[in-house]
Amino acid sequence: MIRVGIVGATGYTGLECIRLLLQHPYVSIDYLFTSKQFSDFPDYLANKKSLPDCLTYFDPKSVPELDCLFLAVPHGTVHSIMKDLETSSCKIVDLSADFRLHSADLFEQYYNQVHDYPELLNKVPYGLPELYTASIKQANIVANPGCYATASILALYPLKDRIVSAIVDAKSGVTGAGKKVSELTHYCEVNDHVSSYSTNVHRHQVELREHCHDRIVFSPHLVPMSRGIICSCYITTNKELTYDDVVGLYENAYKNASFVRVHKTGHKVTTQDSVGSNMCDITISSVTKDLIIVFSTIDNLIKGAAGQAIQNMNIMFDLDETLGLPMCETRI
Amino acid sequence: MIRVGIVGATGYTGLECIRLLLQHPYVSIDYLFTSKQFSDFPDYLANKKSLPDCLTYFDPKSVPELDCLFLAVPHGTVHSIMKDLETSSCKIVDLSADFRLHSADLFEQYYNQVHDYPELLNKVPYGLPELYTASIKQANIVANPGCYATASILALYPLKDRIVSAIVDAKSGVTGAGKKVSELTHYCEVNDHVSSYSTNVHRHQVELREHCHDRIVFSPHLVPMSRGIICSCYITTNKELTYDDVVGLYENAYKNASFVRVHKTGHKVTTQDSVGSNMCDITISSVTKDLIIVFSTIDNLIKGAAGQAIQNMNIMFDLDETLGLPMCETRI
Amino acid sequence: MIRVGIVGATGYTGLECIRLLLQHPYVSIDYLFTSKQFSDFPDYLANKKSLPDCLTYFDPKSVPELDCLFLAVPHGTVHSIMKDLETSSCKIVDLSADFRLHSADLFEQYYNQVHDYPELLNKVPYGLPELYTASIKQANIVANPGCYATASILALYPLKDRIVSAIVDAKSGVTGAGKKVSELTHYCEVNDHVSSYSTNVHRHQVELREHCHDRIVFSPHLVPMSRGIICSCYITTNKELTYDDVVGLYENAYKNASFVRVHKTGHKVTTQDSVGSNMCDITISSVTKDLIIVFSTIDNLIKGAAGQAIQNMNIMFDLDETLGLPMCETRI
Amino acid sequence: MIRVGIVGATGYTGLECIRLLLQHPYVSIDYLFTSKQFSDFPDYLANKKSLPDCLTYFDPKSVPELDCLFLAVPHGTVHSIMKDLETSSCKIVDLSADFRLHSADLFEQYYNQVHDYPELLNKVPYGLPELYTASIKQANIVANPGCYATASILALYPLKDRIVSAIVDAKSGVTGAGKKVSELTHYCEVNDHVSSYSTNVHRHQVELREHCHDRIVFSPHLVPMSRGIICSCYITTNKELTYDDVVGLYENAYKNASFVRVHKTGHKVTTQDSVGSNMCDITISSVTKDLIIVFSTIDNLIKGAAGQAIQNMNIMFDLDETLGLPMCETRI
Repeated sequence: MIRVGIVGATGYTGLECIRLLLQHPYVSIDYLFTSKQFSDFPDYLANKKSLPDCLTYFDPKSVPELDCLFLAVPHGTVHSIMKDLETSSCKIVDLSADFRLHSADLFEQYYNQVHDYPELLNKVPYGLPELYTASIKQANIVANPGCYATASILALYPLKDRIVSAIVDAKSGVTGAGKKVSELTHYCEVNDHVSSYSTNVHRHQVELREHCHDRIVFSPHLVPMSRGIICSCYITTNKELTYDDVVGLYENAYKNASFVRVHKTGHKVTTQDSVGSNMCDITISSVTKDLIIVFSTIDNLIKGAAGQAIQNMNIMFDLDETLGLPMCETRI
Repeated sequence: MIRVGIVGATGYTGLECIRLLLQHPYVSIDYLFTSKQFSDFPDYLANKKSLPDCLTYFDPKSVPELDCLFLAVPHGTVHSIMKDLETSSCKIVDLSADFRLHSADLFEQYYNQVHDYPELLNKVPYGLPELYTASIKQANIVANPGCYATASILALYPLKDRIVSAIVDAKSGVTGAGKKVSELTHYCEVNDHVSSYSTNVHRHQVELREHCHDRIVFSPHLVPMSRGIICSCYITTNKELTYDDVVGLYENAYKNASFVRVHKTGHKVTTQDSVGSNMCDITISSVTKDLIIVFSTIDNLIKGAAGQAIQNMNIMFDLDETLGLPMCETRI
Repeated sequence: MIRVGIVGATGYTGLECIRLLLQHPYVSIDYLFTSKQFSDFPDYLANKKSLPDCLTYFDPKSVPELDCLFLAVPHGTVHSIMKDLETSSCKIVDLSADFRLHSADLFEQYYNQVHDYPELLNKVPYGLPELYTASIKQANIVANPGCYATASILALYPLKDRIVSAIVDAKSGVTGAGKKVSELTHYCEVNDHVSSYSTNVHRHQVELREHCHDRIVFSPHLVPMSRGIICSCYITTNKELTYDDVVGLYENAYKNASFVRVHKTGHKVTTQDSVGSNMCDITISSVTKDLIIVFSTIDNLIKGAAGQAIQNMNIMFDLDETLGLPMCETRI
Repeated sequence: MIRVGIVGATGYTGLECIRLLLQHPYVSIDYLFTSKQFSDFPDYLANKKSLPDCLTYFDPKSVPELDCLFLAVPHGTVHSIMKDLETSSCKIVDLSADFRLHSADLFEQYYNQVHDYPELLNKVPYGLPELYTASIKQANIVANPGCYATASILALYPLKDRIVSAIVDAKSGVTGAGKKVSELTHYCEVNDHVSSYSTNVHRHQVELREHCHDRIVFSPHLVPMSRGIICSCYITTNKELTYDDVVGLYENAYKNASFVRVHKTGHKVTTQDSVGSNMCDITISSVTKDLIIVFSTIDNLIKGAAGQAIQNMNIMFDLDETLGLPMCETRI
């Protein structure tokens, strides 16, 4: 069994890690590091008799003996403790943004903090297994990608070398904004409305640009739903491609990817396809001389966060990457 | 023109007062008392050129010359300043709960505060015009009822003298919980779920009992919608009544009530009927030997708060009670 | 392996049977009887390679060799074919209402049809395992209860012998109305509103009365959510009981019930607890001299339909009743 | 008073015409042409005592004496009766698509019908008053634009002469799909999900191309909300413009437009701004060398249909275009 600890266990991402790890055949949740009481956890965990005993306060200088640590904590709280964590023997999946970027300058610019451990930035692989399985397999620390970045990069990557520019118009459910209360996530401020925000300045845009292409404009929108992201990608390429060329590039890029499904024109594109599972559904909608249109959908808390973190753990521990992960939930 | 000031202008209730008063033919909004900036107001008020000039801090000891003051402030913040306010010349509609109850003891019990001005409690009329128009007309201060209390009392009142006991199972939209951020009103905690809360201990239950009958059990539920309340009332009476008897009692009780519509069996009961208007829709659903079933619906922010406050103002200033108030919005 | 066939596979109930049975360790889905094409199925079933091969037209006179048949078809379509089905060797879980009632007269009255096979009505056990496991175990045919009836009966049953009268105010998600298109289930007619319907005349009320008590009034409401039922039960009893008495009665009644959780005052009651699982959560909210208040919540498509059908199948085949059934999903 | 008749009075568009026209100071609704009964109308119209008397069957060969006829009927049902209607003396606002396009070939291609009256196509002005007031003023027949087309054209028009290409990613509420029941608008198929549809082949795309520019790609999405459209427009231009240049172009284009508000970077873009009113809110979000990003929001049933139809009527009858139309509703 892989002995697992989760730091920051009561946010949406931490809770999703617990929910999914409880179904993993080779994992035991040994520690939930949190300052909260067990009564702060949702009721459905109440009959998990084993959980209350594993609640404890997290001290980065004295990590208990574990095989794998999931850091589901706010951005900006990991880079300053990573040197301590490195001295422990456990592998780390960092769900915060602290080691996602390669550039300490961009981190400072987008997260308004000086990075405490810039020399590690280029050594931690970006935990998008569809692109970087080999380096994840050998890593002790992996930086789990942002939810928007996951959906966008998977939609653009097969065209990476041909992109001239791309626009990603993304629509996300509200769990993407986290569990912290704010006027922006008050039910009545979200219900029955769509809004746009952070156009062209969203933090995840940096990830897209680092891993795909410099000339990508990212335009996120908040939609009245709990889970799910749909990215509508409008891509211009430097050389004319046929529809079949494009489908070929995607099918080839993901031929070994357990969690990517490539669909063709005519497929009904909806977040419903992916929500509840660790899948990313990609649809090649249209290919014309001027523009290629591709849609991708994921569950922002699963493939966009906790599921991908577990996929990374599976790879780091040399397990089948699909172990314990839902592949076709999609209930109404 | 009635010169109006609104204290607490940025909560849901205060904003609704502004929205409705802007459409009142005989009202000018002279002051919005608030600690916020104009930029904290919703955008649709931005093109009301006149509004920014009327923002100011509220000092109960120095109320400017106004005809009417709306207090849209938190419960427990009015009773301690009312002696100061009384010295001003303006009439007051208090949308807080501070002067709703007749008993200082019950106030203390339900609102966890000692009441600072108990001797006024019996002198301030309860601002439910369908019951107390005469005393509202003569009052300088009116206590605007709670939203649940409004819908429930209007549904029960015509049977008041015959009730043995009653259960009011209420379902409310989320604006009823106010604009203050809290985990309870986070979009994802409300979306796609119904919950019950404060069963038999809700503060509005006291109002029901004071104005209708001692043996009423009030059982509220939170529903994923922004506005609207439906009260499903299950009533046992001390004497057998026919269906026509009951309809007669309701039609008679509300024959002069501009904002109450009485419907019969077969009417489709939905909050959609009342939301957007100041109406209370009451449906006499079934009358059997053992049980009378009555439904009522209102818009919690209009008839349940701001609209009723304006109705009270109209009466206090001897105007037609319907002036400036929506009677049949009900858009999809 | 239990070889299973599902008749009526494209409705919400049929689809939920497929979704759950795909996760059952001892079941193979051999036939999906339907007049639809595989392309009419939701996309997430598309990568179930095995499913398309098992689509076929259902002929009640020539049922293929199967161990268990799930009838997920409209009410009124089973009673006329049951004589044919009985000649097959397979066990039958009937999810329609055709054999739920004991009285052919009540069936005729509530379903507007003369029953073709009244002599079977008293022989088919009502498939609520928490009450009737013994007879389900020996049956070849089981009548799966209605969703509202399941939640209501489980909430009332432990007080059965003490009830004088009870009111069940129920709130349901829209999947309860089925997948058939109708103006009532149009998104815009449901969104942001609550409505009441079929007060005191709903078909499930008959089931409540047959299995619990004659003097139950059932009052259903439609709520803007996809899944979930909450029943708020207001019960008067013929003898005064203490809170501990009542809790004792419930804990005793369900001490062997894998899918019932009994909660006490203080528990936050929400459909979120039960949705996604086969659980029924029951909360004893308050017990006074005059009134006992009990809440129950279920997922209407799981414990209220497909999950309970599989629970019945497990019992009929002498398996652990929990096999293949979700017990604590409750994702946000 | 303008004597008005509405054909097709029970669809969402027809009902919205009634709702708004009831508030118009110079309009009397003399006829509601419909095959339905008054009981098919929503309940809030029930207390409009005058309405039931005006229900009648529509015979295009014998239109009663009226000043203005609103055709709120399905696409494809107007072109064949227009010759008859022309013989009546009343002015016509056609809310169907039948006379929106200038080309009979495109009509045939997008609406799958041969146009019966192609010679009129170029004579009927496109009823977008912000562009074509002069010709609307002189017309007897006006073709009311599509909802998507209204929001998109208003967002692009000021850049018309500089556009090289544009992508309009649009998100719409469900009333845009009409009231007709269909599996696509079933509550459970829409709730908690976003889907894309008709990418690059939507009928409104033709309107955009006719009135703005040939190289526009239109990409619509369905969002779980009742009302509202947001168009996110990504525009490349043939000459570099500064942010101030662009703002200047928009402010100039709409300096006389009562129903357009131009906002700058920093404005929070949400459908909430426009829903409930006849306003189109346009935000110039960012201007870079490569790309201009502009957002527009409208209420699809008001500025996108019934409100714009009334605005057209106002202009055709030489009234102030804002008469009877809501300008800042925006309630929560």
